[in-house]
Amino acid sequence: MTGQGALIVISGFSGAGKGTLVEKLIADSDRFSLSISMTTRSPREGETNGKEYFFVTKEEFQKKIEEDGFLEYAGYVGNYYGTPKAYVEGEIAKGHDVILEIEVQGALQIKDKYPNAILMFVTPPSVEELKKRLIGRGTENLESINKRLLRAKEESILMHKYDYIVVNDDIEDCKKSVISFIDAAKSTPERCSGFIKKLQNELEEL
Amino acid sequence: MTGQGALIVISGFSGAGKGTLVEKLIADSDRFSLSISMTTRSPREGETNGKEYFFVTKEEFQKKIEEDGFLEYAGYVGNYYGTPKAYVEGEIAKGHDVILEIEVQGALQIKDKYPNAILMFVTPPSVEELKKRLIGRGTENLESINKRLLRAKEESILMHKYDYIVVNDDIEDCKKSVISFIDAAKSTPERCSGFIKKLQNELEEL
Repeated sequence: MTGQGALIVISGFSGAGKGTLVEKLIADSDRFSLSISMTTRSPREGETNGKEYFFVTKEEFQKKIEEDGFLEYAGYVGNYYGTPKAYVEGEIAKGHDVILEIEVQGALQIKDKYPNAILMFVTPPSVEELKKRLIGRGTENLESINKRLLRAKEESILMHKYDYIVVNDDIEDCKKSVISFIDAAKSTPERCSGFIKKLQNELEEL
Repeated sequence: MTGQGALIVISGFSGAGKGTLVEKLIADSDRFSLSISMTTRSPREGETNGKEYFFVTKEEFQKKIEEDGFLEYAGYVGNYYGTPKAYVEGEIAKGHDVILEIEVQGALQIKDKYPNAILMFVTPPSVEELKKRLIGRGTENLESINKRLLRAKEESILMHKYDYIVVNDDIEDCKKSVISFIDAAKSTPERCSGFIKKLQNELEEL
């Protein structure tokens, strides 16, 4: 309603289908832009700078921290990961909805700084289904699956901090729901306070 | 997500198109039920008991107040108007979304008692358009139009208490938006706390 885009944060259990969901959303490139994280870790085989991540040195990362150039950043196993601010703010100003796929702690950091960010938590319809999907990938051993489930348990405690719970049963339905939720979130009074103010002023001037 | 219906409260400026919107929604009778108010005023010509209102005596109304039989009620120019509780609760239990078209004060009373009620405020895109619609009706004199605009000014101060602001520019788009907003509202953590609890328990038991 404001002509401005929104900041959409997508988190959820490992195995919930976030990656496929994000791919489906950004296929509509007139509406959505994907924020790419910056990291100090080395690219793995097949990874391209600017696609999976922006790969930088620790010095470059440190400099960006000092310039207040991140929306959020965190250290993880000796490396840094962060969301560069300039790209996100530029795309939002252009009217694009910017998607950030990040984990729960980062998401809550974003919400603190940008209360208008729209936080979505993606989950399968049940834990049984979650297990089935993790096993079905065929790429994980039992230890890795158990680690992911333990992590899901921790994450589930923070689900209530999100704006919307997105149940991913069928991926196409899930995508439609996310789009509905974004439209709805943009129509909450907090996010269209400019429009309300305009109406109030017009009524005042009568 | 819970199988239960929701309580949908629709308010908005006189001339915003609430009546047409409600008619379009309740056309889907598998999903929506319309709550009919009870009043002590006499039926006007053409009004039928149980359609526009349930018409009752002051004694009957008083008795229902004593039995705690109203979701909300108020006096207006010597008569009482109220929302009977039993019908609303019965329909919600059946899984229907129950629509209440009521004015702002009643809506906020409902929200106090039923924090999960979904409050929608309907408005035209601008005050100019609102005036145009009120004049276009051709049934109102200038005094009556000015009274409605004055009332709109008062109501606009409480718009931020609603869950969603619904801009009625095109009625079909407006109806679609309302349905999206209801789906979204049902997916907020407060309204699907049962589902979150279930996931947490399942993860706990692993």
